[in-house]
Amino acid sequence: MSSTDLDPFFKPKSVAVIGASREPRKFGHVIFKNFVESEFKGKAYPVNPKAESILGLKTYPSVKEVPSELDLAVIAVPAPMVPPIIDECLSKDVKAAIIISGGFKEVGEKGEELELEIREKIKDSGLRIIGPNCIGVYDPINHIDTLFLPRYRLRRPKEGPIAFISQSGAFGSAVLDWAASQDIGISKFISIGNKIDVDEVDILNYLVDDSLTKCITVYVESISRGREFLKASSRVAKNKPLIVLKGGVTNEGASASLSHTGSLAGSAKVCAGAFKQAGVVQAQTVDELLDYARTLAYQPLPKDQKNIAIVTNGGGFGVISTDEASGLGLKLAKFNPETVRTLREKLPEYAIVHNPLDLVGDADVERYRSALDAVSSDPNVGIILVIVLLQTSFIESDVVDAITESQVTYGKPTVVCTIGGEFTQILVKMLEENRIPSYPTPERAVNAINALIQYAKALEDINKKQQLNERGTAQAGRVTKRNTTCRWPSPS
Amino acid sequence: MSSTDLDPFFKPKSVAVIGASREPRKFGHVIFKNFVESEFKGKAYPVNPKAESILGLKTYPSVKEVPSELDLAVIAVPAPMVPPIIDECLSKDVKAAIIISGGFKEVGEKGEELELEIREKIKDSGLRIIGPNCIGVYDPINHIDTLFLPRYRLRRPKEGPIAFISQSGAFGSAVLDWAASQDIGISKFISIGNKIDVDEVDILNYLVDDSLTKCITVYVESISRGREFLKASSRVAKNKPLIVLKGGVTNEGASASLSHTGSLAGSAKVCAGAFKQAGVVQAQTVDELLDYARTLAYQPLPKDQKNIAIVTNGGGFGVISTDEASGLGLKLAKFNPETVRTLREKLPEYAIVHNPLDLVGDADVERYRSALDAVSSDPNVGIILVIVLLQTSFIESDVVDAITESQVTYGKPTVVCTIGGEFTQILVKMLEENRIPSYPTPERAVNAINALIQYAKALEDINKKQQLNERGTAQAGRVTKRNTTCRWPSPS
Repeated sequence: MSSTDLDPFFKPKSVAVIGASREPRKFGHVIFKNFVESEFKGKAYPVNPKAESILGLKTYPSVKEVPSELDLAVIAVPAPMVPPIIDECLSKDVKAAIIISGGFKEVGEKGEELELEIREKIKDSGLRIIGPNCIGVYDPINHIDTLFLPRYRLRRPKEGPIAFISQSGAFGSAVLDWAASQDIGISKFISIGNKIDVDEVDILNYLVDDSLTKCITVYVESISRGREFLKASSRVAKNKPLIVLKGGVTNEGASASLSHTGSLAGSAKVCAGAFKQAGVVQAQTVDELLDYARTLAYQPLPKDQKNIAIVTNGGGFGVISTDEASGLGLKLAKFNPETVRTLREKLPEYAIVHNPLDLVGDADVERYRSALDAVSSDPNVGIILVIVLLQTSFIESDVVDAITESQVTYGKPTVVCTIGGEFTQILVKMLEENRIPSYPTPERAVNAINALIQYAKALEDINKKQQLNERGTAQAGRVTKRNTTCRWPSPS
Repeated sequence: MSSTDLDPFFKPKSVAVIGASREPRKFGHVIFKNFVESEFKGKAYPVNPKAESILGLKTYPSVKEVPSELDLAVIAVPAPMVPPIIDECLSKDVKAAIIISGGFKEVGEKGEELELEIREKIKDSGLRIIGPNCIGVYDPINHIDTLFLPRYRLRRPKEGPIAFISQSGAFGSAVLDWAASQDIGISKFISIGNKIDVDEVDILNYLVDDSLTKCITVYVESISRGREFLKASSRVAKNKPLIVLKGGVTNEGASASLSHTGSLAGSAKVCAGAFKQAGVVQAQTVDELLDYARTLAYQPLPKDQKNIAIVTNGGGFGVISTDEASGLGLKLAKFNPETVRTLREKLPEYAIVHNPLDLVGDADVERYRSALDAVSSDPNVGIILVIVLLQTSFIESDVVDAITESQVTYGKPTVVCTIGGEFTQILVKMLEENRIPSYPTPERAVNAINALIQYAKALEDINKKQQLNERGTAQAGRVTKRNTTCRWPSPS
């Protein structure tokens, strides 16, 4: 598996949309339009035997007639028509195909047979396939967009550092739309559907070397190649954070998943253990998947010191954060005597110089600045949680600058908690622009910090083991490699 | 404790704002302006010895000079000036006072002495006090608004069925602002601060009879009158749902709370047990507090049948909901053979007739209508979770009507899960308008359903016990009442 073999999916020079249509509501129309009306730099060809021209472009009756080599074919025709089209793609030496069409394994035996037929066809060929039963690829950097959902419904997010792999197309599209509304950027989105060929393992192996992706998030229901998945995950985790939400972890959920994607899910316990061993950050909920992604993508890892300082203008949120941290086994920093001295000097008498540091309701930006300066330069503090409730008129929007500057100056991971209406939402987007993650509740902010700490610790463990192994190998010459693979259920 | 003795806080005919000011940023200015510029039906008098007129209204040098009886005094002057003002209020026979000012118990011994002094003064008087160190009362029905936070920062929510009691003013103001932005309505908001007199117990006893309040939410850090709290909670729970988020449940959180409101918090275990016994729905997080409130305020309780039907157009979210329900010990309904027949007849062949019922990505409103009709009329179904991802162009906004109509027609509690950008947000507000609660993730939707079920069960238990007691009493004449009070830590 080379790290570039999926390039035709993301950097094609030429694309054919098979099933391109003149009817605006048809999937093939929306997909073709995405290529024509975006800044896609390659050539896009519509293929449809019943049309002469689509969106003003000459339309070809079959892939074979397209007057150019083809890197990528996007297939949006009824399931039974897919196998002959794959034949044409093979004879045309197309490098990659995305089968959008549903009607395969998820609908039963007949569909499963179609999948087997296609799989047989591409065996030993160079043709790689994503799908079927998927929404394909969205890559805002290379302007690849095979999403058949129109832009007035599914807004496309801007480019950013987070990659997202989803087995479920609807889940994926909902998250993309949400991300766009929150100004959250995406490096690549891949909907893998029934995984006839390319699966999460292939994509992890590809994304590990993608310098634009700083963090990978995954929603999967079934992991068919367990051992390879763990191997790929380990490799990823050494380089960048990998967050996985596993659907179908209960018997009932697994049975629902079987109907949904036709694939069997693994047990919760086996997954959790294996994930941990591989350095995967496991999300237990959709909120966690989306929350963790931003802290892990935007913020540096804490160094040796992992104790938290909480700075707040609302005592109640300070209390709740402290409860949550304590419940998760996280430690609040004990401030240095010097820090305490500075804080007492700079803050008004009624501020509560303690951790959580309560700047009190009338705190202004200057007070936040002084507090963040003092706390960030304290060697006992590894991570900073800034709670800033914006309902008071004492605080102006330059509190965003104060938080960002302290993060940049001291380099300590910083997470914000704020909740409210319009003004809050504007500041949340300003923070997002500056890559400071913010959360509406103290629990979610602390939980995101916990994910960062867990990943930092996993990475330290991995590095320690590697050093030990290297030292061991150096000393003993050749040592039998310790079996570190976990007991993953073998693929059925 | 009569159910009307707090009326002067919520239905005053005359209000004096002591510390009213001409300077727009001063608390006293904002508060006085709230009364003058709202539809408040009573008379509002500014009190300030240094001003002759504020906002064009004659200003009085002291409470005593106000030429009318006073139901309510709102006090926003520095802490040391408060006791003499209380004296004046007493001699003027003011019925209720809200002390906004901070600088009391939360800042240490001196402040504590001030509190004792005030408490001593009002002993055996008719004067009731909310505060100090609070933001007071917001009541959109009677147009009482003592929030000193300006409206351009803290938008006021419209009127609605949810009451909110908060020990923390900042938490309260953030939630109000958020609620306004989500079009969530409030019946009454009370910030209780240091609770020198009126506490959560008094307010629960008052709100139990407030017909406009359908659900009460509470954030507290300390509960000083444990037994009375449980008694009041039981009484409330029999009439309407009561949701409590308790801050300071860990040792670390409790210590933070001590600095914040100067009050000692109780242990997590004692609370949880006592809450359960009283029929209180305990929220573990801020999200839960806000999420539970809407389902419990808007939706009817499930009848005997509590099994859930999940209807979705996204298989992944169906799987995740199923996982969550199963993890919480909730049961998915097994559809009746007749329901299955109807569904097979009405839905396309590729829909997955199963629970979760997957209408598949191209589902339109008509498909939702058929599915909701069939599922709602199934006697095996007690509660309905509708997942509707709005990124497809097949679904129009009348899906809101379909969901609302099925809820109204069949009377079964219905909760929606949807996530996305602008279009989704519009539909979420339409649902909110129709009192159908919606949540951005499957886990939060299922969790809210769980809260509804837990409350329904608690109510059933309470009613059973009551019937047994009544029967027992009737049979045995006089029976010693069983001691059902819990071991609550005695107030320190």
